Amino acid sequence: MTKTFVSGHKSPDTDSICSALVYADLKQQLGVSAEAVRLGSISKETRFVLDHFQVAEPRLVESFAPEVEQVILVDHNERTQCADDIDKVQIIEVVDHHRIANFETAAPLYYRAEPVGCTSTIIYKIYQEKKLPIPKKMAGLMLSAIVSDTLLMKSPTCTDEDKAALEALAKIAEVDLQDYGMQMLKEGTDVLDKTIDELAANDAKEFKMGKHKVKIAQVNVIDFADVTSRQKELEAKLQEVIQSEQLDMFLYVVTDILNSNSVIIAMGEFAHVAETAFKVQLENNSAVLEGVVSRKKQIVPVLTDAFETLK
Amino acid sequence: MTKTFVSGHKSPDTDSICSALVYADLKQQLGVSAEAVRLGSISKETRFVLDHFQVAEPRLVESFAPEVEQVILVDHNERTQCADDIDKVQIIEVVDHHRIANFETAAPLYYRAEPVGCTSTIIYKIYQEKKLPIPKKMAGLMLSAIVSDTLLMKSPTCTDEDKAALEALAKIAEVDLQDYGMQMLKEGTDVLDKTIDELAANDAKEFKMGKHKVKIAQVNVIDFADVTSRQKELEAKLQEVIQSEQLDMFLYVVTDILNSNSVIIAMGEFAHVAETAFKVQLENNSAVLEGVVSRKKQIVPVLTDAFETLK
Repeated sequence: MTKTFVSGHKSPDTDSICSALVYADLKQQLGVSAEAVRLGSISKETRFVLDHFQVAEPRLVESFAPEVEQVILVDHNERTQCADDIDKVQIIEVVDHHRIANFETAAPLYYRAEPVGCTSTIIYKIYQEKKLPIPKKMAGLMLSAIVSDTLLMKSPTCTDEDKAALEALAKIAEVDLQDYGMQMLKEGTDVLDKTIDELAANDAKEFKMGKHKVKIAQVNVIDFADVTSRQKELEAKLQEVIQSEQLDMFLYVVTDILNSNSVIIAMGEFAHVAETAFKVQLENNSAVLEGVVSRKKQIVPVLTDAFETLK
Repeated sequence: MTKTFVSGHKSPDTDSICSALVYADLKQQLGVSAEAVRLGSISKETRFVLDHFQVAEPRLVESFAPEVEQVILVDHNERTQCADDIDKVQIIEVVDHHRIANFETAAPLYYRAEPVGCTSTIIYKIYQEKKLPIPKKMAGLMLSAIVSDTLLMKSPTCTDEDKAALEALAKIAEVDLQDYGMQMLKEGTDVLDKTIDELAANDAKEFKMGKHKVKIAQVNVIDFADVTSRQKELEAKLQEVIQSEQLDMFLYVVTDILNSNSVIIAMGEFAHVAETAFKVQLENNSAVLEGVVSRKKQIVPVLTDAFETLK
């Protein structure tokens, strides 16, 4: 049988890794020869999850076409976030919870996007709709992805459907949601031993906004100083990435998961667009965004608007 | 409560009209203030359906923004097939069974596409998933849309899911599928009293293929001569549309629904691309495509490939 890859985005976060593993399990239950793969290294938070539920990590690949003709994308759709050879394979399915952009197919496909907090919430619904059993380990992975994406339900992206899924999955996975969730999130905020390269690449995604190329990375902390103490070094690295990838802006978002605020560092020729977008003054390339924790809901749409209305 | 429009594509076919009506009913059951609208006149086939099940036609609108802020698109996603002011409103949902192209949103949305024969098949599944009752009239509309799009299950686009939906819906709508279906399809093949303008605009959709602008219209007949007898007159009209809409190609597809073949008439500067795409020789701007009945599955992908590989 022809194999199909199930892949999350580049610089994978917990949702991209877990949703790929879980959706591959779901497809296997339906008789599809599906293999979860990943396009980058595993974060500390995700490592904690995989160890906790004793699940092996997806295989690391750099491209799809040498091995498969068909892929399923989870947790992303924008070309710039896919493997570079995405145009050489057929995308037969997408399960995602983001905007749709820079995405085009020649043929019809199965596309399922919902404006919920996490891809795994949608996959949980698909298990239900298809009346498939949810293995305990898979429940654990989905729960972890939802905790990660919704910051344990504190993000404005968290919907009632995410909450309902979390409750149901906690029972199947047999974990205490609050205890486990907090422990997992804290694990992800341990950034002190990251190299500057790792820090700059943390959950970094590229977006087209108007005619502009923008990269946005995000890292969770429980103390801004864990990152801001290394700001000069980080800025030099961001500048390097801007040069090599010809970005118009690199927005670096440091999110305090306990107090639900973010500090941004905006670099590049169009860094000033962040000032218009978020109605702040950059000082030392940086500003505090009160109450902002969600890239998807509070950053990307606002910044896209600002870039699209640029004169 | 804010009103939301549910709209099918321009030059609406039976699926676009019926799916808009039915999905508006489904959303109303969920408490949403949804109104089905249409972007063009009702075909004879669709008129037969609405009369048979005694359902009023959706209201004709030319634009969305003067009345609503949010729309739901059914049976299409490509910007060129929407109301012209689509950029001024927010697309909050799409339910569709076509390729995804020329589609972009700033924010996450509910997008449900499946590679099945008809949008109404997906809507039927959504009723099931949400455990909502299907009113008899709505069952009749969905059944009619599926019969229309799959040519009573004879099109290669028809899947097992379409067949299962048809069977279930025939019971709820209390119709004999074969009798009703054939009667309905024949109603739609009555093209003799159409003006040339109406004939040229019949189920016409615009596509971007590579850098090119292509319009494809399709009409069902039980005798090719019903259209080919007026070919010269039709060609003059197509030429006029090519000029005014600056098309690179106008492909006119006449489909014999009894024998499952099509005659194409290819016009425009890039008409020759049809020869490469379908491996035929155009004679008198025309060629027979044996076994071809589906624009979506047998025409658009093949023609897109041919345009994209143009030197």
